Amino acid sequence: MAAEEVAPGTTATFRRVYETLKAELLRDSAFDFNEDAVRWLDAMLDYNVLGGKLNRGLAVIESYKLLKTGSELSEDEVFLACILGLGIEWLEAYFLVLDDIMDNSQTRRGKPCWYRVPKVGLIAINDGLILRSQISRIFKRYFYGKTYYVDLLDLFNEVEFKTTSGELLDQIITNEGKKDLSKYTTDNYRRIVEYKTAYYSFYLPVACALLLSGWNLDDYVQTTHILVEMGVYFQIQDDYLDCFGDPEVMGKIGTDIEDYKCSWLFVQALSRVNEKQKGILFENYGKSDPASVEKVKALYKELNLEMAFSQYEREIYEKLTSDIEAQPNEAVQAVLRSFLHKIYRRRK
Amino acid sequence: MAAEEVAPGTTATFRRVYETLKAELLRDSAFDFNEDAVRWLDAMLDYNVLGGKLNRGLAVIESYKLLKTGSELSEDEVFLACILGLGIEWLEAYFLVLDDIMDNSQTRRGKPCWYRVPKVGLIAINDGLILRSQISRIFKRYFYGKTYYVDLLDLFNEVEFKTTSGELLDQIITNEGKKDLSKYTTDNYRRIVEYKTAYYSFYLPVACALLLSGWNLDDYVQTTHILVEMGVYFQIQDDYLDCFGDPEVMGKIGTDIEDYKCSWLFVQALSRVNEKQKGILFENYGKSDPASVEKVKALYKELNLEMAFSQYEREIYEKLTSDIEAQPNEAVQAVLRSFLHKIYRRRK
Repeated sequence: MAAEEVAPGTTATFRRVYETLKAELLRDSAFDFNEDAVRWLDAMLDYNVLGGKLNRGLAVIESYKLLKTGSELSEDEVFLACILGLGIEWLEAYFLVLDDIMDNSQTRRGKPCWYRVPKVGLIAINDGLILRSQISRIFKRYFYGKTYYVDLLDLFNEVEFKTTSGELLDQIITNEGKKDLSKYTTDNYRRIVEYKTAYYSFYLPVACALLLSGWNLDDYVQTTHILVEMGVYFQIQDDYLDCFGDPEVMGKIGTDIEDYKCSWLFVQALSRVNEKQKGILFENYGKSDPASVEKVKALYKELNLEMAFSQYEREIYEKLTSDIEAQPNEAVQAVLRSFLHKIYRRRK
Repeated sequence: MAAEEVAPGTTATFRRVYETLKAELLRDSAFDFNEDAVRWLDAMLDYNVLGGKLNRGLAVIESYKLLKTGSELSEDEVFLACILGLGIEWLEAYFLVLDDIMDNSQTRRGKPCWYRVPKVGLIAINDGLILRSQISRIFKRYFYGKTYYVDLLDLFNEVEFKTTSGELLDQIITNEGKKDLSKYTTDNYRRIVEYKTAYYSFYLPVACALLLSGWNLDDYVQTTHILVEMGVYFQIQDDYLDCFGDPEVMGKIGTDIEDYKCSWLFVQALSRVNEKQKGILFENYGKSDPASVEKVKALYKELNLEMAFSQYEREIYEKLTSDIEAQPNEAVQAVLRSFLHKIYRRRK
């Protein structure tokens, strides 16, 4: 999902709307910020909200365009879609600022993690909470009084609940996994990925576009399932590329093996090993020396995981395509196809 | 505000409702928790939500009773008031779990801080986010469809925004204050206390009771001002007692001087010192050796801060009393008087 694939100008509009929202937050009448605090918030927002590729946010605008068949979006409609897209970017910033502290991470999006910036430190925790509470401020300013205002609040609340609950599962299972790798089951893998990633990355942008179109989210349960399935597929690709992708194309070198990650490749390997191979896997997984990493990679190859991935990709593509065709609404079909098209056989 | 002062049985009811809410959260259909996660959440909630004196939560029930003149609360009304009261306790748990990590604190409510429990560590950060998102789950279950549902969500969102923004001010000013104590001004003190403490501790319980009574929060701007003023008074008492209170009565020994706190006593001292006294104050504040602490305390006495506090207390009591009398609604007057009565001249 490269940002360049959206209509030219969209990213620029998105950034302009960001500047508007930021300026409003810094002079919010509900709080009497002093100059030091304004400077702090300004820097914190630029560092954390705008640092990524903005895929999730831009997907709101694209989806809304596809849902509104027959006519272009008006300027006002684009503006509101940008705001909801930015709401998702704000939500992601909130998760990432705090996740990085929990995971003791070093870098994020090519820069030091926010909490590693010298003057910041653990104040980053409160910055995370501020990011969360700013979403509510923004939505109240622009959507209060709209028929879908309460549904919008409920949507973000529910996605937040699912994401943080998924993160808890991940933390518990990874903690246990470090002592007992057999906790890394396909069931646990699926549960973590579905809740921790798929809802906010794939379901949330489309749900925002549906609300903007005045549609009722309860009528799109099947659409939700398809989007969540695509989110799981996306994460499986990520795990596959971490080991088998081309570092030149991806722009980074994977470290899932070194980091003890509950990766799709690991859970697949675990379901295929004999006792001897299991010994090799358990002995070498989570170690940072290159020889151990190589042994794990060699075992992945021996177990034909590349082929297993190709087969999974072929099957999930067919299943998603037929599920999309079964959707009654053609505009919704178009949205889902556009998502699938962007991720199918991606190499980065 | 001792818990024993509410009607007998209220605390027991409150705890029963807590058990109901907890059981529902652990089997929430929006998430597929495994057994390990259920055990984790169960322990996390008991440790953090129920650990305190529950004053803020119980104040919702008391205030609602006072607002409903002429008849007793029905069982259903008490139940809903308990839920909103618990929502405030959940909100406080969310703030405290994360504040303790930021402040590198050791103990909270006589136990190790949650993040210091060995198996927990920084997973506590995500537990904080879960506490926040559970409030939304609880409110959706019990208040969705009520006329004040959206006002309730907005209320909690606004108070969260004010509290986290107040915490940011505190973090920035305390960071600067450690290098330059002259940042500890009365203006900064007031701003931090108002936002970081007063809104969620004093305004929020009454606002919940007003919503339950079907009243419009926009009609109670003056009531809000009075409650925030009482919250500031409450914090000033806290700061005073930290130095001049009786440790036997309070059950703890204050350490604000050692901890470089932006305390009311410090900002008062700073506004009264001559150059020589300022030198003594700056040289000894924030040091943990008893001789330095004693020098600061001696200076506080020399500057007559005990008398300054008595004078402040007398004046704020008179002002609050006359502001309360100017409130048009007698039931609201009763609520405000009950709050003032509980804190006036408190010794712990």
